[in-house]
Amino acid sequence: MTAPDAAADLGLLSPVRAGTPAEAATGDRAWLTAMLDAEAALARAQAALGTLPASAAKTITAVARPDRLDLRELALAGRHTANPVVGLVRALTAAVAQEDPDAAEYVHRGSTSQDVFDTGMMLVAGRTLRILRADLLRTAEALARLAAAHRDTPAAARTLALHAVPTTFGLKAAGWRHLVLDAVQRVDRLLDGGLPVSVGGAAGTLAGYLEYARIDGRTAADYHRDLVAAFAAETGLAAPELPWHALRTPVADLGSVLAHATGALGKIAADVLVLVRTEVAEAAEPAPAGRGVSSAMPHKRNPVLATLIRSAALVVPALTVPLQQALTAEDERSAGGWHAEWQVLREALRLAGGAAHTAAELAEGLTVDAGRMRANLDSTGSRVTTERLAAVLAPRLGRATARRLLTEAATTADTTGTPLADVLAAHSEVAAELSVHQLHDLLEPAQYTGAAGRLTDRALERGAISP
Amino acid sequence: MTAPDAAADLGLLSPVRAGTPAEAATGDRAWLTAMLDAEAALARAQAALGTLPASAAKTITAVARPDRLDLRELALAGRHTANPVVGLVRALTAAVAQEDPDAAEYVHRGSTSQDVFDTGMMLVAGRTLRILRADLLRTAEALARLAAAHRDTPAAARTLALHAVPTTFGLKAAGWRHLVLDAVQRVDRLLDGGLPVSVGGAAGTLAGYLEYARIDGRTAADYHRDLVAAFAAETGLAAPELPWHALRTPVADLGSVLAHATGALGKIAADVLVLVRTEVAEAAEPAPAGRGVSSAMPHKRNPVLATLIRSAALVVPALTVPLQQALTAEDERSAGGWHAEWQVLREALRLAGGAAHTAAELAEGLTVDAGRMRANLDSTGSRVTTERLAAVLAPRLGRATARRLLTEAATTADTTGTPLADVLAAHSEVAAELSVHQLHDLLEPAQYTGAAGRLTDRALERGAISP
Amino acid sequence: MTAPDAAADLGLLSPVRAGTPAEAATGDRAWLTAMLDAEAALARAQAALGTLPASAAKTITAVARPDRLDLRELALAGRHTANPVVGLVRALTAAVAQEDPDAAEYVHRGSTSQDVFDTGMMLVAGRTLRILRADLLRTAEALARLAAAHRDTPAAARTLALHAVPTTFGLKAAGWRHLVLDAVQRVDRLLDGGLPVSVGGAAGTLAGYLEYARIDGRTAADYHRDLVAAFAAETGLAAPELPWHALRTPVADLGSVLAHATGALGKIAADVLVLVRTEVAEAAEPAPAGRGVSSAMPHKRNPVLATLIRSAALVVPALTVPLQQALTAEDERSAGGWHAEWQVLREALRLAGGAAHTAAELAEGLTVDAGRMRANLDSTGSRVTTERLAAVLAPRLGRATARRLLTEAATTADTTGTPLADVLAAHSEVAAELSVHQLHDLLEPAQYTGAAGRLTDRALERGAISP
Amino acid sequence: MTAPDAAADLGLLSPVRAGTPAEAATGDRAWLTAMLDAEAALARAQAALGTLPASAAKTITAVARPDRLDLRELALAGRHTANPVVGLVRALTAAVAQEDPDAAEYVHRGSTSQDVFDTGMMLVAGRTLRILRADLLRTAEALARLAAAHRDTPAAARTLALHAVPTTFGLKAAGWRHLVLDAVQRVDRLLDGGLPVSVGGAAGTLAGYLEYARIDGRTAADYHRDLVAAFAAETGLAAPELPWHALRTPVADLGSVLAHATGALGKIAADVLVLVRTEVAEAAEPAPAGRGVSSAMPHKRNPVLATLIRSAALVVPALTVPLQQALTAEDERSAGGWHAEWQVLREALRLAGGAAHTAAELAEGLTVDAGRMRANLDSTGSRVTTERLAAVLAPRLGRATARRLLTEAATTADTTGTPLADVLAAHSEVAAELSVHQLHDLLEPAQYTGAAGRLTDRALERGAISP
Repeated sequence: MTAPDAAADLGLLSPVRAGTPAEAATGDRAWLTAMLDAEAALARAQAALGTLPASAAKTITAVARPDRLDLRELALAGRHTANPVVGLVRALTAAVAQEDPDAAEYVHRGSTSQDVFDTGMMLVAGRTLRILRADLLRTAEALARLAAAHRDTPAAARTLALHAVPTTFGLKAAGWRHLVLDAVQRVDRLLDGGLPVSVGGAAGTLAGYLEYARIDGRTAADYHRDLVAAFAAETGLAAPELPWHALRTPVADLGSVLAHATGALGKIAADVLVLVRTEVAEAAEPAPAGRGVSSAMPHKRNPVLATLIRSAALVVPALTVPLQQALTAEDERSAGGWHAEWQVLREALRLAGGAAHTAAELAEGLTVDAGRMRANLDSTGSRVTTERLAAVLAPRLGRATARRLLTEAATTADTTGTPLADVLAAHSEVAAELSVHQLHDLLEPAQYTGAAGRLTDRALERGAISP
Repeated sequence: MTAPDAAADLGLLSPVRAGTPAEAATGDRAWLTAMLDAEAALARAQAALGTLPASAAKTITAVARPDRLDLRELALAGRHTANPVVGLVRALTAAVAQEDPDAAEYVHRGSTSQDVFDTGMMLVAGRTLRILRADLLRTAEALARLAAAHRDTPAAARTLALHAVPTTFGLKAAGWRHLVLDAVQRVDRLLDGGLPVSVGGAAGTLAGYLEYARIDGRTAADYHRDLVAAFAAETGLAAPELPWHALRTPVADLGSVLAHATGALGKIAADVLVLVRTEVAEAAEPAPAGRGVSSAMPHKRNPVLATLIRSAALVVPALTVPLQQALTAEDERSAGGWHAEWQVLREALRLAGGAAHTAAELAEGLTVDAGRMRANLDSTGSRVTTERLAAVLAPRLGRATARRLLTEAATTADTTGTPLADVLAAHSEVAAELSVHQLHDLLEPAQYTGAAGRLTDRALERGAISP
Repeated sequence: MTAPDAAADLGLLSPVRAGTPAEAATGDRAWLTAMLDAEAALARAQAALGTLPASAAKTITAVARPDRLDLRELALAGRHTANPVVGLVRALTAAVAQEDPDAAEYVHRGSTSQDVFDTGMMLVAGRTLRILRADLLRTAEALARLAAAHRDTPAAARTLALHAVPTTFGLKAAGWRHLVLDAVQRVDRLLDGGLPVSVGGAAGTLAGYLEYARIDGRTAADYHRDLVAAFAAETGLAAPELPWHALRTPVADLGSVLAHATGALGKIAADVLVLVRTEVAEAAEPAPAGRGVSSAMPHKRNPVLATLIRSAALVVPALTVPLQQALTAEDERSAGGWHAEWQVLREALRLAGGAAHTAAELAEGLTVDAGRMRANLDSTGSRVTTERLAAVLAPRLGRATARRLLTEAATTADTTGTPLADVLAAHSEVAAELSVHQLHDLLEPAQYTGAAGRLTDRALERGAISP
Repeated sequence: MTAPDAAADLGLLSPVRAGTPAEAATGDRAWLTAMLDAEAALARAQAALGTLPASAAKTITAVARPDRLDLRELALAGRHTANPVVGLVRALTAAVAQEDPDAAEYVHRGSTSQDVFDTGMMLVAGRTLRILRADLLRTAEALARLAAAHRDTPAAARTLALHAVPTTFGLKAAGWRHLVLDAVQRVDRLLDGGLPVSVGGAAGTLAGYLEYARIDGRTAADYHRDLVAAFAAETGLAAPELPWHALRTPVADLGSVLAHATGALGKIAADVLVLVRTEVAEAAEPAPAGRGVSSAMPHKRNPVLATLIRSAALVVPALTVPLQQALTAEDERSAGGWHAEWQVLREALRLAGGAAHTAAELAEGLTVDAGRMRANLDSTGSRVTTERLAAVLAPRLGRATARRLLTEAATTADTTGTPLADVLAAHSEVAAELSVHQLHDLLEPAQYTGAAGRLTDRALERGAISP
């Protein structure tokens, strides 16, 4: 047999999440803990309804701790039953029996592997989403500061890789924050009811739970509903309307939300990777000692954080494919469809969480070079504001004429190095309408940022719902 | 040049949507119509704010009709500018000029390709989502009828491809409906504010719009906000807080919602494809003349509807990858990222819409064979209720003993063909606890459907929000 | 019913392929033509084996032309049978019957929808791959010219968005060509045997074909093999070892090859989009009149071709998911799995083909600015060659010391604007080892391009297999 | 800081690979080992060319063992540089220095992180592909035995979920084997030259390597080529024509091959999951003690192996999206594109390898029930052979008439329970042509398996290339 460490994934290939809180919250140990929490909560819920002795629930809760079990052994046992719960129940039962043989009879009572696994999965998801949320908020706060500080810092807006018209860096940062708050909103939608306990029994009818309750003399018509409510209360998860063994909306939703969050952060990374380019140099990543070191080139200070975030943003969307396809589960429990979800969801959770942790660090430390932004704006001799001239000249010369004239003038300015205002001033049709002074004024980039400042103000009014 | 028809896609390869309303709502002509609607609405919005003559807005609105333009020519022109709007503006301007040369100066005033394209895209999306929603509701209604009619029809629940415990067909149909209503809920979330107009101008600052307004003497500080509001009012779309040229939450959300809806319908298809199997034969698709005919085998009546729905469910999740990756757009407009969205979103819209149309037909015509369900339940000699016996015997014999004994008895019943109750009655440990009559009673599948009936009732209480 | 044109896709949303040869080769009409070619070839193959009258084969061949059939009607009929072949056979039979009622009995004889559809699909794939291949070769040839012309043009190599060390533009172009030839190689692998005819009959046993042959007195043991061979000969496709209705290696392979080709071209686009950035400006796209025009900004000349190619490269990888998943087809013909392939494969074919057509134009017209490359290299005061100094100083000062010293000197050069050579010459430890003249020499970028020239030479020796 | 075990992945969520050889071959420790192997091989290659002291190469080789390094520490250090190699080089250098300070100067000489990482990645890929290949061959051998044993076992062929015509189980198993051999062929294509060493230096020009060689007086023009060849020889990998830091064909190819292999195995799983269904029961998984146990239902014996294989087949195709997109890497090293590959490729390798290991066990132990296959064939009263009657009657009654008549008869047979032969014999048009005895003969399923037997024979002649 293979020694555990040989096969283990300790983060070597995934620096975007290595050592982050989201990684710890999604490791095998965290998952095992959550499944044990589910077993214990189930026992307590049954005890609360009088169908399980309180003392047994207490013992089960006390024993249901991950250090009592051998994680790798459970992983290997999972191959025999296609899920880790059968082995977990066996091991937990044995451990409880050591404390109290009677209590052992009540472990996993009336339950099924999927109830425990899926409840554990939602616990892990909820815990990780809260971590993700906190890092999204940290990111948003830092971006709000950047946006406010640079509300009026002119910079080139770029479309299809080229300078388009002027904008402000503040508006760019406000846009980043806007996306991050979109992500928070979607996370909150899930945390607020989208993460349910799983209580279905063998195949979604709760028959096993009801049978044990019947044997114990609890025959209330609403026992199934009470059990779901009690379990939800014990776990802090939501009470679903129907068992969802084969109704996988929660899984699909998690996929969508995690892809959105990672994509939102990926936008920031994509922009930063443009801004730090040697030739652009409008921003720089925070650079504590050792960060961004190249193994070959002493002069480099690599944009490590943006690189890591982008690596996650390139992967998570693909992971949503199996998570969305989970919806097409056949029967009352899919053979393989359910099992395909687990590792993929874990990866998506830790990549999103790792990206958010990294983004917070990036946003908090990003250095912005307003001087370089201005220099880049000026580097094309004001051609970045031709749109404005087109608007001014259109009513006077007709739109088509104005446009043709400006295209020619821009080309002349480019090839001769003459400022565009001077090229235009030399043009009789233009000179008849506008003085060279007016032309210079109209072509001043800082005077043509449109509603950038007001849009930034407005965007910053948007708050995040408090945690 | 290639003749248009040679290259055209008329639905030959996509029967799931051929001839459906969603197909018509997403064709090139529909898209062109929506973009022209956007141009006209923009003119009217500017007129409403006093920055464009009302007569020009009227002329533009009158002329902005798809039959005035050559669709294929626009498609080909798109190659020169990487989007179809530049050509559309040119053609529309010429058409308006034929009516009124002055009005032509006001076409697309201050605007940019992306504002028109994205607004058109949201119009198409909104129109198609409404069609999708209606078909989801039709499906849900039909499923409600099925669930109510079969509230107490016992059937085998299947997990990992095998009979697990009894359930009811009503609960299965209620589960399908539940997923469909989940989809409706997600569609509504988008229709209610998630589909915004696009008003950013060349690069998200609205500078062009503001410049023209300034020239026309409109210098109100909130002109940018008024313009967005007026445009939203004219189109029936939402007014976004920020220009979203490079903040692609609406696109990512559409991807998620369409994948969810198609996946939800795919679950129904996956189940129907099990139920119609020759050996299972618990359900049959509606079979009007000509439907499901095989080109080779006269006896076959293929489950065509489920097949079509599944074909969509296998594709749409993959289409969400580019739609989610749209979020990582670099700069103020991505070179290629934006352009990658269009055809993919169209495909997702028409596949989801086609699947819903097909699902409504399937749900409305599905035939259920309760007798066959019972026969299948009985075919394994009650082994489908061993879980119940395990619960009953566990407190008397201990859980492990009860389980071992039942596993052995189930195997004996299987190999000898003896009913399980009789095998158990012959077992002294069991006979000491339960009579053969009691055993038969406990093993009766119809008596072990747990909370299936009550869960069905509850699920049917869930209503869809009215359109 | 919906008018055909409302639903049609004429390329409006997909400029990367609008009007390209690959679009025409993959339209519904082309697909219909290919299926008719398959029907005709099947009749001729049977005739060649003596199990179908030669005259009937001749009539079927003559009639099997797309203009005899109503494409949209076939598309709509496909909804009733989940594929377009049942309707096609009916329409073709009727058309043949008009010419010769006896011949009509022989249409689609012994066959099944999937044989005709899949053979047609492979014909379409083969025809499009040949177009793709030709455009890949055009691209490779143009890139070879670029690489040779710029074998010794120094340029900054960029890693993680930053200048790393010098390279040559020739090596970059040679790398692009290398990828393109990798794509050609993979296309050739498919064209050379990977595209098989489909001959399985109703479910892969060829029983229908054999039964008709038996009735006609042809009872040779190898008839099934002869039929496959004759059909392959008639179509120009390969003869598979087994019917592949549910063994979808050809489909998965097409997905892989098309993703590779598009990705290879996407690499060129990604690089061009860096090189054309306003601040970088080392290359420019070809700009015939009207190309790259912005609807808002007169001065812009958008990198349209790279944008279009990138839009395809962002989508095709996602399309391979359903094409790879096609392998997991259940049974002898999958319900939905097969049907999910068609439209996706068509999209992948036309996106890859459109991208290649676009890339050929890009490669043939790309303008390279060697002067700007040099200026960019110089813009950081030779820091781009610190790696070399590190190598030179390491043996003299120890590696760690050399590295630390260079990192400090690079920072000083950056903040003070002093050339790095002068900063280093002022450093006693360095001055003891190297003169200022030696330092300037060692830091000259053009002298530190390593094996770039020789690698370019070698790469250009790689030829494409002639078509 | 987080304790390693909390974050570790030990296989709990991925039973398809837990404890398999492929898991061990792809763990972090295996990856670290491979990167150290690369460092050592690089030193030996340089020593072989005379540019590094043989004694240093020896020391480096001796020290480059994973137990000398702290894996988790390296993983955490990776966050600072976006890859684990910078930390690895530092730690290895320190460890070598402990043995021999002079040798430490030669660690990673002239090299770059990507050369070491990518070479290590190819070593891991090669090692895992060999394991995968062996398990594919084991699977193919077991399937060959099944196919031979059941060459003439009639069974229902199923299309679109319904009985179509008869086939044999032998042909089904031969088809499975065919796909598996397709996978072997694609693996071999990669093992035979597709897995190259990476030697590019800082940015693909090998300048660093050449500079050190120059300093050491080695100025041969072909040093770059010699170095690649020597490194290839030391590692057993191939010598690439060009550095491939940003030319990612090997990564895309790995994605394609792994998706194909997993998909091929997924086909077997999909079929087995049909065959084991309670109502079908034509096959059963091997069931050693403890395998397939349900946590709730004593009678169940879950198809665990097929479930696990399917879980992998549902995921790997999605993982190929980032691996294909790796091709679009910008610049000489992508910021994020490269980093996105690692974990995804690892997952794909271990899922494919785990699936193959599982498939070998499934194929070797699958139990086939020929009696049940016959019973299922008979269960529809010979309707499974209507195609044959259609062929026989068509020349006598005309195709359309024959078809209509058979469709009606099949319906009558279905609703009345009368055998189809008797229904037809009662039909005057048919009775005029065929006796009831002939009808029964023609409808005998075992007589209508077409070329199934011969196709099986032929398929079994296909051999795998020896390892």
